Amino acid sequence: MRSRRFDADIYARRLSAATAATAKAGLAGLVITPGYDLQYLIGSRAQTFERLTALVLPVSGDPSVVVPRLELASLKESAVPELGLTVRDWVDGENPYRLVADALGGAKVAVTESMPALHLLPLTDVLGVTPVLATGVLRDLRMVKDAAEVDMLRTAGAAIDRVHARVPGFLAPGRREADVAADIAEVIVAEGHSEVAFVIVGSGPHSADPHHECSDRELQAGDMVVVDIGGACGPGYHSDSTRTYSLGEPNPEVAQHYSVLQRAQRAAVEAVRPGITAEEVDAAARDVLAEAGLGEYFVHRTGHGIGLAVHEEPYIVAGNQLPLATGMAFSVEPGVYFPGRWGARIEDIVVVTDDGAMPVNHRPHELIVVPA
Amino acid sequence: MRSRRFDADIYARRLSAATAATAKAGLAGLVITPGYDLQYLIGSRAQTFERLTALVLPVSGDPSVVVPRLELASLKESAVPELGLTVRDWVDGENPYRLVADALGGAKVAVTESMPALHLLPLTDVLGVTPVLATGVLRDLRMVKDAAEVDMLRTAGAAIDRVHARVPGFLAPGRREADVAADIAEVIVAEGHSEVAFVIVGSGPHSADPHHECSDRELQAGDMVVVDIGGACGPGYHSDSTRTYSLGEPNPEVAQHYSVLQRAQRAAVEAVRPGITAEEVDAAARDVLAEAGLGEYFVHRTGHGIGLAVHEEPYIVAGNQLPLATGMAFSVEPGVYFPGRWGARIEDIVVVTDDGAMPVNHRPHELIVVPA
Repeated sequence: MRSRRFDADIYARRLSAATAATAKAGLAGLVITPGYDLQYLIGSRAQTFERLTALVLPVSGDPSVVVPRLELASLKESAVPELGLTVRDWVDGENPYRLVADALGGAKVAVTESMPALHLLPLTDVLGVTPVLATGVLRDLRMVKDAAEVDMLRTAGAAIDRVHARVPGFLAPGRREADVAADIAEVIVAEGHSEVAFVIVGSGPHSADPHHECSDRELQAGDMVVVDIGGACGPGYHSDSTRTYSLGEPNPEVAQHYSVLQRAQRAAVEAVRPGITAEEVDAAARDVLAEAGLGEYFVHRTGHGIGLAVHEEPYIVAGNQLPLATGMAFSVEPGVYFPGRWGARIEDIVVVTDDGAMPVNHRPHELIVVPA
Repeated sequence: MRSRRFDADIYARRLSAATAATAKAGLAGLVITPGYDLQYLIGSRAQTFERLTALVLPVSGDPSVVVPRLELASLKESAVPELGLTVRDWVDGENPYRLVADALGGAKVAVTESMPALHLLPLTDVLGVTPVLATGVLRDLRMVKDAAEVDMLRTAGAAIDRVHARVPGFLAPGRREADVAADIAEVIVAEGHSEVAFVIVGSGPHSADPHHECSDRELQAGDMVVVDIGGACGPGYHSDSTRTYSLGEPNPEVAQHYSVLQRAQRAAVEAVRPGITAEEVDAAARDVLAEAGLGEYFVHRTGHGIGLAVHEEPYIVAGNQLPLATGMAFSVEPGVYFPGRWGARIEDIVVVTDDGAMPVNHRPHELIVVPA
């Protein structure tokens, strides 16, 4: 099985960068409970809730991990042993929030977005100062992927491409969307993902609903079928790719509108480069559709960042003036939706490079016609 | 499919009881984001994270729900429409924490344990007062099951009993623990659960590790096999039952120790009645094992409460002086573990009634010998 975490030096670099960003923000430290930030910083997938597990990252002093003695074993899979982090274990009856406070050099700290009230409120009590969110401190780090992360997104992209290559074999009149989805889920794992993140199969009128997941509807000749799928690979990096299939030859109007969508998707990918804003990429897709009179049928944002979370920053949406930078990774996924009739979407993940967008998906963008 | 939530009148009663408990605690209201408490109070399984969804329960005034307009549809499955709760939807750019504050009649509020820092910190900002945990207010309500919940725990118990009845057919020398677990997972759903919660298959030396889940180890003649399994039924109530299987006849020492364990489990069940403390139930099992010289091999608590969460209050453990009350539901699951050799555990869920424990599981407690 592919390794569930990176080499320790990668986490060591991330811890240094997070500490530097914390110092720059004028804070005494970071407190990170289980979730994506903990996975990012030390490769731990711990999911403890009732008893506090936390990475404590002071700006002065060494990072440490506070962990219930019962759950010490959960650290074995993480980079904690290799990094040689101090581990402060605790047993029922002790106050783990006091351990966290002692490991910090001050009271003004930032906490991970997912820290539950169960831990945040007693921590606030012990610190005597309400923490702030670590979002600002960690945003740039999480958003700009390093070489190991880009490599993992490419691995995940290649795996989901292999799944899409097999999708036509699952589509036939009379099969239910749910059956198709079950076949796809199996192949997502068989083609190298460690887990299935989501499987959307929207056929016929369901293809016109961007929020549809799957149902008992039976596929029919003449259906458009939107297949939007993803899984997690290695240390938890995600794939996410959509292709649209036609059961039998599409009618000329469908074919014509689809070709506009294909141009819109390409225009957005071609617009990507360091320095352009997220909303300009969104506009690049939107403008092509609007010029063809299809603007009102594109009812969602053009894309979302991706990494340990399927949806994370940067969001490719009107109003987001964030300038893109080399290493950012996100989806480019315009769609057109004609309610009650049909819809289509094309989605690739791209990584920003100095030379523009590098897609991690390489399946053809044409409407894929499956014999009906 | 079995209904995913109860009738609205059940949620109406819970909302009234929660409001009364909140008033009694001297608080202005409760704010409940997605999680078990929200599932308990309005039957909503919403899992939103980035955008605030919250039930606001003021002690003076009507309950309301704050929800992103994009996710309005997620309320359709809950009891919100039938209860006629006010829905305050919001769009990006608005401040949902202000909506929550406006729906409350004061600043001193309690929040659900799972509320993430992402929402708790801005809510604290708007209220100007740090909230407290709703744990104390909701504990009695969540811990004492009503008739509908007991009914659902019995349904789940019967379903997992049917799974255990089929387990011997999956056990044979040469089969891997993981293959057995996959078969069991399939049957958990086939026998009426809507989802699999966990599947533990610990064979041979793995049976001696209470934290083992499953592995690629192949079963061998002479193995003890601990099978600890559960799933969720209907509105999300869990089953959890353990039986221990022997591949071939056990040796006399194993058989003798197992019979002590069986007496210990029965003693704890027989100790259950309203008014006895949680730790006295724990001691009832522990004493039987200690008298037989096996005390040191029982290395975990005797049980945990169960309901919407697999593990919740009351915990049946030394130090917990909570008096049991009619309607509480928990596991009784002593075990003995001889490291590197073998282990065994017997687990039923019981509900406290005026007349003592009512088990929801009814499979035989004897060591089940499977031909090897």
